[in-house]
Parts: sequence; C-alpha cells; structure tokens
Amino acid sequence: MSAPTTATVQVRPRSDARHQLVTEKWATEPAVPIDEYSDIYGNPIKRLVMPAGPLFLTYDAVVAVPDEPDPDALAAPQAPVDEIPGEILHFTLPSRYCLSDQLMSTAWELFGNTQPGGPRVQAICDWVQGNIAFKYGTSNPMTTAVDVYQGRIGVCRDFAHLAISFCRALNIPARYVFGYLPDIYVPVSPDAMDFAAWMEVWLGDRWWTFDPRNNQRRVGRVLIGRGRDALDVAMMTTFGPAAFRSMVVWADRADAS
Amino acid sequence: MSAPTTATVQVRPRSDARHQLVTEKWATEPAVPIDEYSDIYGNPIKRLVMPAGPLFLTYDAVVAVPDEPDPDALAAPQAPVDEIPGEILHFTLPSRYCLSDQLMSTAWELFGNTQPGGPRVQAICDWVQGNIAFKYGTSNPMTTAVDVYQGRIGVCRDFAHLAISFCRALNIPARYVFGYLPDIYVPVSPDAMDFAAWMEVWLGDRWWTFDPRNNQRRVGRVLIGRGRDALDVAMMTTFGPAAFRSMVVWADRADAS
Amino acid sequence: MSAPTTATVQVRPRSDARHQLVTEKWATEPAVPIDEYSDIYGNPIKRLVMPAGPLFLTYDAVVAVPDEPDPDALAAPQAPVDEIPGEILHFTLPSRYCLSDQLMSTAWELFGNTQPGGPRVQAICDWVQGNIAFKYGTSNPMTTAVDVYQGRIGVCRDFAHLAISFCRALNIPARYVFGYLPDIYVPVSPDAMDFAAWMEVWLGDRWWTFDPRNNQRRVGRVLIGRGRDALDVAMMTTFGPAAFRSMVVWADRADAS
Amino acid sequence: MSAPTTATVQVRPRSDARHQLVTEKWATEPAVPIDEYSDIYGNPIKRLVMPAGPLFLTYDAVVAVPDEPDPDALAAPQAPVDEIPGEILHFTLPSRYCLSDQLMSTAWELFGNTQPGGPRVQAICDWVQGNIAFKYGTSNPMTTAVDVYQGRIGVCRDFAHLAISFCRALNIPARYVFGYLPDIYVPVSPDAMDFAAWMEVWLGDRWWTFDPRNNQRRVGRVLIGRGRDALDVAMMTTFGPAAFRSMVVWADRADAS
Repeated sequence: MSAPTTATVQVRPRSDARHQLVTEKWATEPAVPIDEYSDIYGNPIKRLVMPAGPLFLTYDAVVAVPDEPDPDALAAPQAPVDEIPGEILHFTLPSRYCLSDQLMSTAWELFGNTQPGGPRVQAICDWVQGNIAFKYGTSNPMTTAVDVYQGRIGVCRDFAHLAISFCRALNIPARYVFGYLPDIYVPVSPDAMDFAAWMEVWLGDRWWTFDPRNNQRRVGRVLIGRGRDALDVAMMTTFGPAAFRSMVVWADRADAS
Repeated sequence: MSAPTTATVQVRPRSDARHQLVTEKWATEPAVPIDEYSDIYGNPIKRLVMPAGPLFLTYDAVVAVPDEPDPDALAAPQAPVDEIPGEILHFTLPSRYCLSDQLMSTAWELFGNTQPGGPRVQAICDWVQGNIAFKYGTSNPMTTAVDVYQGRIGVCRDFAHLAISFCRALNIPARYVFGYLPDIYVPVSPDAMDFAAWMEVWLGDRWWTFDPRNNQRRVGRVLIGRGRDALDVAMMTTFGPAAFRSMVVWADRADAS
Repeated sequence: MSAPTTATVQVRPRSDARHQLVTEKWATEPAVPIDEYSDIYGNPIKRLVMPAGPLFLTYDAVVAVPDEPDPDALAAPQAPVDEIPGEILHFTLPSRYCLSDQLMSTAWELFGNTQPGGPRVQAICDWVQGNIAFKYGTSNPMTTAVDVYQGRIGVCRDFAHLAISFCRALNIPARYVFGYLPDIYVPVSPDAMDFAAWMEVWLGDRWWTFDPRNNQRRVGRVLIGRGRDALDVAMMTTFGPAAFRSMVVWADRADAS
Repeated sequence: MSAPTTATVQVRPRSDARHQLVTEKWATEPAVPIDEYSDIYGNPIKRLVMPAGPLFLTYDAVVAVPDEPDPDALAAPQAPVDEIPGEILHFTLPSRYCLSDQLMSTAWELFGNTQPGGPRVQAICDWVQGNIAFKYGTSNPMTTAVDVYQGRIGVCRDFAHLAISFCRALNIPARYVFGYLPDIYVPVSPDAMDFAAWMEVWLGDRWWTFDPRNNQRRVGRVLIGRGRDALDVAMMTTFGPAAFRSMVVWADRADAS
C-alpha cells in the first residue's frame, strides 16, 4: 500500500515540569515539515506525514534538572473528594487500560485498611513492585490492568497501569506519566515504546510523583507527557501502514560545569 | 455508614451548542451550596456534598432551539488524518467503553468498502440501528461496545458506544454526547441515567450530529455534555454510599408565542 | 436609529471564587434568548440582542460566603519575577486605564522604600485611600489612573485603577475585580456601572484580595469578573444605540438558618 | 545594581499559524536554563535569568511556508456583533496603545461610508499607508495610536496600532501580530524591537491578515506572537536593569530543493 502515513511524535520535554530546557535541536532526514500542537492534556505533539523510504528523526536536548530526588510524599494527606479541584476528578475515572471499576473490590480489600494519603499510595506501589514480575515482551497493546493483576507480569507501563487503577478505585486521582530517566540506554522495540513510565497522584493540594516500577525517589526525571493511560502518551503513534524499524534513546547525565 | 457523599451533577445545557438559554432556575431542598466548574471537555458541572436524608434537586430551564433539524452531513467529506486539528485526534483513540482497537478488523470488514465521509458514518448508523435491538435494562456500567456488538442488544448509550467505536477504528474522530430530546417523558432509573445519548463526528472541518439510536435528523436537541464515552457525561456521579431513589426528567416543547 | 443593539451582561458569580451558589434564577421580560460564553479571563458572559422597547433583566441568586473576612496578606512575601507563573506576568503590563509605565517613577519614589510583599501593597492601599477623595460622578470612561493621580478624586473603580498601576510599576501582578459587596443598596447610574470594584494581587504563590476603596478586609465578597482593568469587566456593554434607563442592585445578607 | 535581571523572549514561531517547522535549534552562551510557557494569548515564551556579563542567544529555524500570498479578504463580509464568537469580542476593546475609544468619531467620519467587511478594512489600510510617513526612531514606548494619528509618522508597530484602533472603533475585532518577513535583514535597535508587525482582523467566520505598513498580500510570513497591541508581543521584555546591546535578525528565504 502506498498511501502516506501520518505519525504523531512525543519527544519534547513538557515545559511545566521540574526540569528546564538549556538547548534543543530538532531535525529530520529527509527534511519534513511538521505541525505542532498541544493535546487535550497539554502534551507537546509533533505531527508529520512520513515520506516514502526511511525517515530519521533527531531530537537532541540538554535539560537542567534539580539535584534533589522526587519530593517525599509520605506525609501528604488524602484530599476529600469535595475538595479536589473539579477538573482533576477526570483522573478518578476508569480508562481503556486502567479498569479501576473492575478492580474496585480488590483495591479495597488490599488497601482499605492502610492509612489514607501518602502511606496508602506507598502501600500500592510496594504491593505492585512486590507482586508483579518485570519482563520485557510480556504485554501487548490490548493488555489492561486487570490482565496485569491476573498475570502478575509486565513492563513499567503495566506496573503504572495497575497502580493507577488501584488509586482511582480508592478515589485518589492518578495519571500516567511518560518520560526520560537518566543513565539509561534503551534500544526501543515497537512493543516497548513507552520505555519509561511512572505515575502522578493527587494528594493534599498538588500532584506527587510515584514510580511503581522502580519504587524509589529518583533524581533527574524529564517529563514528556501525561494522560489517562499509555494510550494518551506514546512516543510515536502512526495512522496507517508504516513499518517501524528501530529507535534508540539515550538519556545521559551531563554534569554542570 | 454515615460519611457524607459527594456528587457531581450535569444538567445545565452547554453554552457552545446550537440552543440558547432563555430562563433558568436551580434550587435544592434543603438548600445546599454547590461548586461549579468545567471538566476537561468543557462540560458544566455542579458538585455538592449530599446531606443526610432525602435531597431534592430542581433544575428548570427554557431553551430556544433552531426550527431546523440536525444539519445534513451526507455530503461531508472525510478529513485526512494530517488535516484534522491536532487536539481532536484525542477522539480517535479507544476509551473505556469504546474499544475501537478490538473492533478494528470488524469495522474495516463491515464498512471498508463504503464511501469515506458522511456516507460511511451513515452506513455505520444504519448497521447499528438495524442490528442492535433496543431494550431497557440490558446493559450495566461494565458493558463495552464489544459486549454490545456480541450481544446485539442495548440502550441508546450502547448504540452510541458501538457506532463511536466503529468510527474511531476507521480514523474518524467521534465523541459521545448526552442531552435532552423534546417530547419525551422519561422516568429515569439508576441504570439508565444516560437517558438520551448520541454522537458527534468530525467530517470535513467541523463536528456533525449523528444519532445511532433514532437514526434520523431531529429538531430540538439540547446538549448537556460531551466526552470520550458515557463515563465522562453522567447526569449524576456519586463518590460514596448514597442511595439513588428516582429522577424524573421532562423535556417539553414550549412553542414560541 | 432602528438597528438592533447587542449587549453583553456580567452578573453571574464566578464559580472559582470563595463563594458557592445555592440557588439562582435568570429571566428577561420579554423573553430573549441568550448566548453564554467565557471571555479570555474566564468571566461568565451573557450576550443578547436587545429588542425594541424596554427590556427588564432579572438575576436573582442566593450565594453562600465564608464567615471569615478576606485572608490577611500582610505576611505574604513578594515573588521574584522569575518565580511568578508565566501566564500571570500578563498582569504586570500596563493596560488602557492602568498606565503603570507612566507612573513608574512615581511608584518607586512613593513605595520604593517600603518592605516588599504584603506591606508594600498595604502601603499602596493606605496611600490611595488617604490621598484620593471619593465622589460619585467625578470620572468618565476615558479616565485613567494618571488622571486619578493628578486629580486626586474618583470612585472605587478609579481607586482600584491607581492602586493596580502602582503594583504593576513595582513588578507585582495586579488585576481588577468587580463584584457584589453585602449590605449595600446601590441605584446604579450609567456612569457608575462598575459599582463595586477592588483588586487582586499576586504575592508568594497565590492571589490576595485588597480593597483600595474601603481599605479593610471584608466578609462576603461575591466575585463576578476579573480582568486587566474596568474595560474587561463591565456589568453591561452595549454595541450600538441602546439607551440605558436604570438599574437597581441589591446585595442583601441572608443569614443561614 | 547587581540584582539578576529576568527576561522573557519571544522567538519561536507559533504552531497554529500557516507555516510549519522543519528544523530548529536553541542555545545560549553561556548555557542558561529556561522556563517555557504560553501566555494568555497562546504565545510561546521563554523566560530566563540573565547572568552577569554578556549573554548570546541563538535561535535558528527552518520553516516551510505556503507558496501563496496572504488570502484575499476583499470579499469577506463583516460579522454582526451578535455572531462574533464571544471570546473574540476581547479584540474590540481599547488597549494601552490602541485607543479606539478616543478615535471613535474619527473612525466613523473617515470610514463610516465605506462598504462593511473586507472593503472597509482595506480602506483603513489604504488610509494609514497613505497618510502616515514611515521613519525609524519616531516613536517610543509611550506612543499611542492617537499620537500616531496626530503626528502622522511612525514605524510598522505604529501603523498597526492605528489601523487596529480604527477597526475596533468600527466593531471589527482586530489583533496585533508580530513575526518574521522574508528577505529582510534588520539590525534591531532597542527602540525598534517589534521589527515586523501587522494585524489580523475578524471578518465572516475567521481571522484575516492585513499589513497596514506594506499594504500588500505577502508570501512567507512567519508568525511569532499575537495580542492586543505591542505590549503583549515584544521580542524581549526585561524586568530589571539589563543593558540591551544589539540584536541581529535574519529572515532568509531557503528554497525547497
């Protein structure tokens, strides 16, 4: 089939996160004009029509990140539903992969006796990291949090989906986050395109970062996209017959001089 | 359990639809203060903490609607993916109830040979209305478009979910719409709270109304909410143990003098 | 001239303020359909085409307000310019009536030695209240903050404009606010349509209320609109030849039972 | 004075304009982290704290533009005020430099007998280009459209301000636009920072480009920012004591291979 394929690409760091941009460079080979827009969640998207033949995309950025790890959320209180800002209740609803409605009774059984707020979310992350085995290639684009709960295996995307589902089942707003983590070198395959995923959870009066896969506070997250689940934040989404060859992502640490 | 229950209510007509407000009145008995906000899709939401005992909500409005039925979309062309405004691609993705990814091959088999654009969407509505039986009480809050496709039965909510899923599978942006239709008197049960649902579809350079349940262009729609699917636009969503008793909706025609 | 006149009306309380709506009622005599929209500052606007002959607008609402007066901002620190959220820098720029650029040196001379933050804004309010005489009918739609500074007389609108100009000249974001204050009965004349005006000022990490006219923390403000200055928030704006007869505003206190 | 100076910079092309980005590169010497945000008008802003000593900013982009000149607006009808989308009425109000209220009677005298819509706006551009002399260095940051009307001299910023004021006085929404024009080489001085300015005018159901300075439809505009007037869209705004040395702007034509 020879129809041109449209693709959307998410690589530019979000400007409302903790990092700051220092330099950036975008180019394609061959040169292709792009549209830029923000999606409904505020993620910066580049859209392009892929020409026939191979296409190389280059995005190179230097980003300044805080020296401190993710803030400690353990003391953060849980917000009553009537005090959560209205538009954030969106992130208490089930979504395509985060079937919090089906996991409702499971969530209450497992975590209903934990202390609300930060400790409850930490208990969720502990449980997910302790009970789900990490293995590449174990999930596919149809895999939901219910599948992950039953199969007890997945990649970071799946860890995040399950933890998010538990949070929403307990009336804690939770959203899916996708980005870069330093000191990783990842040959990205088409099946693992969401190569670094974690979640943000609304406690008290703000969002807090939790990472159900690594289950530790980390230095140097560079946040690209946020959404209900992995559907909203894919590094590349194609509409048509493009063959994806390979992608290589570096996230190197560049010490400040 | 005596914890207060928070509820969100969607009854106010959206101000960016074709209708115009003439008068309106909102009150509760007993009097309860409400928060108002717009959700992520721009829907006007009222939120309140339900007191102990019965609570009566009154919303009464006179709305002016055009004399003409829904515009005729049959000649509307299908927009190529690279020409659809970026933020609207949101409505090509699967969602909790509209599993367009699972229905992808079905959609192409059924409608891949129809003429793109208005005729293709009309073919979808014809198929849904011709193949799904309408019956109250046949679906529940876990029912997805795949269930509807397999069971061949449902309410207007389900008709809309299935048609939306087919559209998205074919790269046509489609969103779920909830509102009032004139000349109906509906004793609403808790299971049928989304008592009037249809869809909007992006063709050419604008949204068009299609109604897979009635499958005809109608006069007098009053639009309350829009979203990915029924999850986003419920007349009432409760967070807690409230018992829903009954609700009566009138949508009467008041002829202009 | 017989052309129809379009008018925009701002009477509905803003839903993101401290008050909560309990009941509301809107009607016109004769019945006229209205458009509703939010302007660029998020203010709820009703727009209507005025028919020939007299038109009566009725808006009646019960609103719940906190028992406490405006929060005390005296200890609030001044935010450095690079820490103010970017979109808020909009409110450091001069505007039609708030000529902070022309009043720059005056502002620094008068307030440059005060303590930055809450005390500096309080010093501005003290100066304005102490040096400007209040008198109805002393200003017109062309009157700027420079005119008020030179003439030393004005209404609450003018007090606000001058104080806002001083704040902006000192790099403190300030915006104009319009709304109801309890226990007032005001026969509104066409010249005094902005019958209750104050300001909000960004200190630390949030907006704070200051009232240069009354110069005291008050209970029961009901906020209708915000903007750069009085141009953005008029109770009624007409585009054409309408004759404004009279308007009566009640803001009564209705004690909770 | 040794306090650090915060600056905001507008150089990145707006992604909702007619052009498309092909490559881009941003860097500073020395390397300085930047915040990015969108202002209230959707303009992309970079904010940085200027270090002591000289700072070099580099922004280099290749942009694809349509081969066609600005669309021909001559046949575009004027929208009645009640049919203009509500949030766009913002651009019928006077602003700091565009004193459409003071120029109201002048506007009606000069253009009240022209045909509404495209011809009326064209008559405004013809008048402005024919009656205002272009000369660098003739205006300053206090110069308003009234000054330009009286002095009959100015730069492209002033041409735009006057034409915008006339449009608004006639109930035609008009906004100020700032960007690059091809085939120009401009050594920008601090006084002339808004080196390429034109306007957009709402006719029918969309915005149209008019250029009161050049008064012709041009190929290759690259749009950076939009707002009420030049205050909202400055290439650089500093908050503090920075000395601006010089800036060189190239907008070269790079023919597609």
